[in-house]
Parts: sequence; structure tokens; C-alpha cells
Amino acid sequence: MLYKGNFLYSVSPEKVAVAEGAYLRLTNGKVVEISEKKMTQASDEGFYDFGDRLVIPAFTDLHVHASQYGQAGLGMDFELLDWLRRLTFPREARFSDLDFAEIAYTAFAEALHRQGTLHACVYATIHPEATRLLMKILGKKGLKAYVGKVEMDQNAPKELTVPAQEALAATESIIQDFAAEKMVRPIITPRFVPTCSDELLAGLGELAKRYQLPVQSHLSENLEEVKWVQELHPESKSYAEVYQRFGLWGTTPTLMAHCIYLQPDEVKMLKESRVIAVHCPDSNCNLASGIMPAQRMLDGGISLGLASDVGACHSLSMPQTMVRAIQMSKLLRSKGEQGKQLDFAQAFYWATMGNGSFFGKVGTFLPGYAFDALVIEDELPGCHEFDLLQRLQRYIYTGDDRNIAARFVDGRRI
Amino acid sequence: MLYKGNFLYSVSPEKVAVAEGAYLRLTNGKVVEISEKKMTQASDEGFYDFGDRLVIPAFTDLHVHASQYGQAGLGMDFELLDWLRRLTFPREARFSDLDFAEIAYTAFAEALHRQGTLHACVYATIHPEATRLLMKILGKKGLKAYVGKVEMDQNAPKELTVPAQEALAATESIIQDFAAEKMVRPIITPRFVPTCSDELLAGLGELAKRYQLPVQSHLSENLEEVKWVQELHPESKSYAEVYQRFGLWGTTPTLMAHCIYLQPDEVKMLKESRVIAVHCPDSNCNLASGIMPAQRMLDGGISLGLASDVGACHSLSMPQTMVRAIQMSKLLRSKGEQGKQLDFAQAFYWATMGNGSFFGKVGTFLPGYAFDALVIEDELPGCHEFDLLQRLQRYIYTGDDRNIAARFVDGRRI
Repeated sequence: MLYKGNFLYSVSPEKVAVAEGAYLRLTNGKVVEISEKKMTQASDEGFYDFGDRLVIPAFTDLHVHASQYGQAGLGMDFELLDWLRRLTFPREARFSDLDFAEIAYTAFAEALHRQGTLHACVYATIHPEATRLLMKILGKKGLKAYVGKVEMDQNAPKELTVPAQEALAATESIIQDFAAEKMVRPIITPRFVPTCSDELLAGLGELAKRYQLPVQSHLSENLEEVKWVQELHPESKSYAEVYQRFGLWGTTPTLMAHCIYLQPDEVKMLKESRVIAVHCPDSNCNLASGIMPAQRMLDGGISLGLASDVGACHSLSMPQTMVRAIQMSKLLRSKGEQGKQLDFAQAFYWATMGNGSFFGKVGTFLPGYAFDALVIEDELPGCHEFDLLQRLQRYIYTGDDRNIAARFVDGRRI
Repeated sequence: MLYKGNFLYSVSPEKVAVAEGAYLRLTNGKVVEISEKKMTQASDEGFYDFGDRLVIPAFTDLHVHASQYGQAGLGMDFELLDWLRRLTFPREARFSDLDFAEIAYTAFAEALHRQGTLHACVYATIHPEATRLLMKILGKKGLKAYVGKVEMDQNAPKELTVPAQEALAATESIIQDFAAEKMVRPIITPRFVPTCSDELLAGLGELAKRYQLPVQSHLSENLEEVKWVQELHPESKSYAEVYQRFGLWGTTPTLMAHCIYLQPDEVKMLKESRVIAVHCPDSNCNLASGIMPAQRMLDGGISLGLASDVGACHSLSMPQTMVRAIQMSKLLRSKGEQGKQLDFAQAFYWATMGNGSFFGKVGTFLPGYAFDALVIEDELPGCHEFDLLQRLQRYIYTGDDRNIAARFVDGRRI
């Protein structure tokens, strides 16, 4: 397939490439060649001209709770632990009901698709059957996802805990059943340290290693939470060390959401283990958690990702998450944080190429990458003559899902 | 007219009244009676049932630049003074062209209407003809607005300054021509101290007094700006005092946008003069200005308003502005600010009843208030049973203009 269009894509955290009226050749859903120089359609090749629209890589969300999509925007007067206990846990318990789960997860998958988030690292709940259902629904929708059955065997309501061995067996069964899947794959998902016994954490570490599966969890989101972990694990020097001790830290690709209140040795551990610290700026505002010092961490050589963290964040829109990350960085600077601030190029890189790398060659249009793309129709109020980069920035700040005219995964329109 | 529906409206900054399946009687566009007790339709009275939808007061935006709507989302890597000089001033100069102005202002008026912001305090540009055009366009759209021709006679590009006497004469002519207008009225609008000579400020103060017109301007948005004002006005103890000296501070109803870096005596002046400090949280993030200590000011008895400040803010949505105000308050608390944080009831009050009071009896459904209302269709993903207040909160956080099914001003659908 040969495409013509305005292609905008990251080539590094600093640079968004702008290929105006360019040609993009696709084979087996992957970019073979992209250039502003004219390419001629081969005899066995299709051709399509995207015209004046913008074509950008699809977005990746590295941390989102599918089960919380329906509660987004509620309980926003709580901080983390109350928000979990009073709103989120009672709601998650309802996913034992597969009819409820089907309605809720279908709405979630449709919303991801609508927002152009075509790759996501997703939390389900403790329920194995509902987790399998979520995986199937995301797969049917044509999305790429890692989905984790959430692991909890303590410090949560009875209906949301499962004995460690039973939980591990159920997780292993899901892993085996989805072993051949390429689009929607399992990920090891201890909810966070407080809700997991040593036995459960150890078992999860073993599963991650045995099946070479990535890991996702939460780290240092809230001061009360950090204190609680210290009380539960007096033997550990830090929150991060608990994960590390059980093989859940960088043995396989690892995502740790939030990372706001890290100790210096935890920052060092992040860097050494290439664990990805996932910035969730809107969620951190809504639960009054604080601001991750993202630019300082980037400058320190830490790998960062970007995520909505719905339901503590109210919107699945990665553009809005990008905007919030930039805003938070500016606020840190206005409060005296040194160094440069996050800019548009960095935020766009995160939401596409940076985050995408967790899924392999995904998130940009360089040769060899999957053509996972969004076609943006940015109808302007008539009197503007903006360049392509300005149009992209304007769409990110002011646009919404109505501006997405088409979505592609592996070269197929979905 | 008799309406039945779910009416949600502020009765104070602390309380959102919920009238479920209630009756609301309207005479001459004003609420006469609202009650959950059944009312019977009079023989000469129309009746309409809004069903399960939510009916809420229309939003009011107390600070928005119509001329900047088309640039929203651009130039977001600048701080205030560079943003003015490099992006905003060159663009505002184009409003000397009435054809350009008509397209841009029509798009702005349509966007306000679409977002449910049916009352707004608006900045035009220095151009008298384009300002009149904006007033006519807003009037045709059925909106209530104060519109200010922006006053600048120094420290700006030549094409954006007008000699003081010429500017004052043009402003007075607009005032006289729109004297009989009830919906769209003039407001005295010195851009900010740096762009106004003493002569211009003095003349504007006289116009405000002579015609008893409200005043809007900017105050203490950015540290460089504050320093600049000190350099320009070594005779003044403070930024606010410059406005006060020229009769532009509380002589008539006065709006001062931003108010982030106030000195203690300026805070005292705000309170004594009942000048309204207008919080523009999204704009203050985007231009890295900082966070207004809104809750502390409220606790100190200062009157606050809420505004988008498009184009430094990227969205005209007052719900999104409410969310950002709540988020900023939470961030201040996470950084050690004492006291309670802004909650949903306060933010909703601001965007409706509080802001609305600048327009008279507008912004709630208590008897005597204009029926300026939005009908909200909050289609839920099927599996939720939320109460009305939760549905309202969910719409504010996660909804958008698509959820607004109808708009009323003075009881007329617009």
C-alpha cells in the first residue's frame, strides 16, 4: 500500500518530524519507506491520498484501570486511600458479575478506540473470568493491549481478596490460555504492595520470570501510602525494594505508576534496572497526590512513560494527559524547580513513540514500525494559516475524539 | 411556562440544591417558583417535561479574549510577555480587517454558545469597528455579554496603539451607541497598566464614572510583569494602586484577572473595594504563571470569580475550568498550603451563581432569577445508578458540549 499525506511523528524526544505531502509505503502493516520525494505506485499496490489531514501515530496509554472507567469524575474529593476504600473497591467488587463486566468493559474498549488510544497497559480486577472477557473485548476491537488480572490477598474488602495460591493458579491459567495471542497479552499485576502478601508477591515474581512477562504496579503515589508500606515492611529499606526482593523489579520490562515521593536510592534503582516510571499527571492532581518531578527524572536518565490512570483521572484522552504533563512541569518551574520545562515535542514523543516502545516497534513512522495511526481532521474556523506543527499542537490542545477521522492498527483500518 | 425536570443549582458557595422531578414556573423569562411539590398547569400556561435530563444554570466566563480564540493551543512554550509580543499582538493587529474579524468573532460566538457559556466578560481588540461587530455578533447569538474595546497607547507595536484622546473618543462613541442595549453592553477595558499611559487611564476612569460602567483588567499575573509595572510606576506603592489612582478600582463593579502575586496591601484593597479577583487556572498553568491562592483569598473574605482566559487557556469549557481550579487547589495543599481545598460545590457556584451575579439576577434558579439554563443529556454506559449530584459531577468532569441538549436565555431557547 502506498499513502500520500501529511505525516507527523517523533524521531526522538526532542524532535517531531514533519513530512508534508509525503509518501509512505507499507508492507505487511509495517512502514517500509517514508519520504517527501515522489514514489510511484507499483502495479500490485493500492494508493490513497489523505489530502490535507494530519496523519500521526496512534496513542499509547501505559496505565489505565478498565474497571474504573465508569466511575471517572466521581469521588474527586478523596485522596488515594479513601478513594480506594470508599469508591473504587466497592465498585471493583461488582466485576464478579459477568453481565456487569461486559457492559462496563465494552464501554471502556469503545472509549479507548474513540480516543485514538490503540495501545494500552490495562488493569482489570481480581476476577479471572471478567479479566478474560476484557481481553477478548479489547482484541475484538482491534486494539493492542497488556491486560493484568489485579492481585490482592490482603488489606482489602473480603470480596476483593483471593488467597495467594488460588490467585496464582488463576493467573497462570490465563497466561497459558493467552500464550499464542499477539494483540492482547497478559501482564503481571500486583495492585500495590499493601494488598499483596509476601507469598503472593513471590509467586508473581516467579510467574513473571517463568513466562517472561512484563510487570505493572504502583509506587509512591501518596505520602500515607508510602508510610503504610514502611509499616507493613519494616525489613525493607524502601517501597521499591519490596518489589525488587520478589523479582518484580526490572527482571522483565516493568512499569511503575506515579513515583512521586521516591527516596534517592529508589531513583538510583529505577535507573539501574531500567524500570519505567509512569507519569499520571491528571490523576495526581485529582487525588491531591502531588507532582512527579518528571523533567528532573528525565535529566537524571530515568525512563519515563505517560498515562491517564483513569479512573483517578477523568479522561482517557492522551492529548489531555500530554497537556497536563506540560502544565505540571510549568507549575514546578514557577515554584522554583530548576532546569528546562517539558515541551510539546517531549510530551508528543511520550504519548506515541516513547510509550509505544513498550509494545515493540510501535509509535512512530520510521521504517520497520507498525503503521498504527490516526488520521486527524482539524477543521479550523476559516481564518487561519498555520503550519503543520502548529496544527498538530492546536489539535492536541483544543481537539477531541471528533477530530479523529480514521484509526489504523498494523496497516488495517479499525 | 411550567417545566418539570431535575433542576440542580447553587444556593450558596457550599450547597448545590437538587430538585428531583421538580416543577419550575416561569414568567417573563424569570423563575417564579421552584418546588418538588406538584404544580398544576394554568389554562394559559405551556408545559414541558425535561424527563431524566439534568437542568442547570448556564455558565458565565468572567474573563475571555474573543480575539484570541483562534490562537488557542498555540505558543504554549512562552511565558506572558513573550506570548504577548511574539504571538498575540501580531494576531490582534489583524482585527483591523473587518472580514477577518467577522470570521473570527463568529467562530468565537458559536463556540461560547456550544460550550454553554451564555454570559461572558469579553475582551475585543483596540479596533472600534471590530469591537462593534463583535457586540452585534454576540447579540445575534442571544448571549449576554460585557464587551470591552481594549485600550493601549504605549509599550505595544505601533499598529496596536491608539493615541489616548482618539481611543477615549472611540470608546465613548461605542458606549453611547450601545446605551440602550440590555444583552451586550460595553465595559471599560484598559489592557493592563504597562500598555496604558496616565492620560489614558485617567480618561478611562472618568468614562467609567460618568457612564457608571464596570471595569475589567489584568493584575499581577507574572513576576516579570509585576516588576515592569514597578519600573513604570515608581510613584505607586503597588500595581493595584495604579488602577485605584485613576478611578479604575471599585468605583464601579471591577474585575481583575489573575491576582497571583499580590502584596498584602493589595489583598486588603481587594477586600475593601469589593473588587473581584478572577481566577484563570488553566491560563496560569499554560503560561507558567503560577497558582492563585484561591482558597486562602476566599477564606480572607475576598470576592472571587472564575474564568477560562482563552486564548492563554486552550478551552472555552467552563466545566474544564472548574476542574482545573479544583486541581490547582489540591496541588497547593499537597505542597503544604493549609486549610480546606476547593470542592465541587464551590467550583460549580463560581461558574454559575457566583460569576453570574456580575450580570444581575443570573446563574441560579431561585425565584427572581432569569431562566438562563442548560439541559444536560448525560448518556451513561448503561451499568450505572448514580444520584443526580453524582451525575452532575460526572458531566462536569467527563462531559463536553455534546452533552448540552438545549440552551435557554431569559426563558427563550437559543
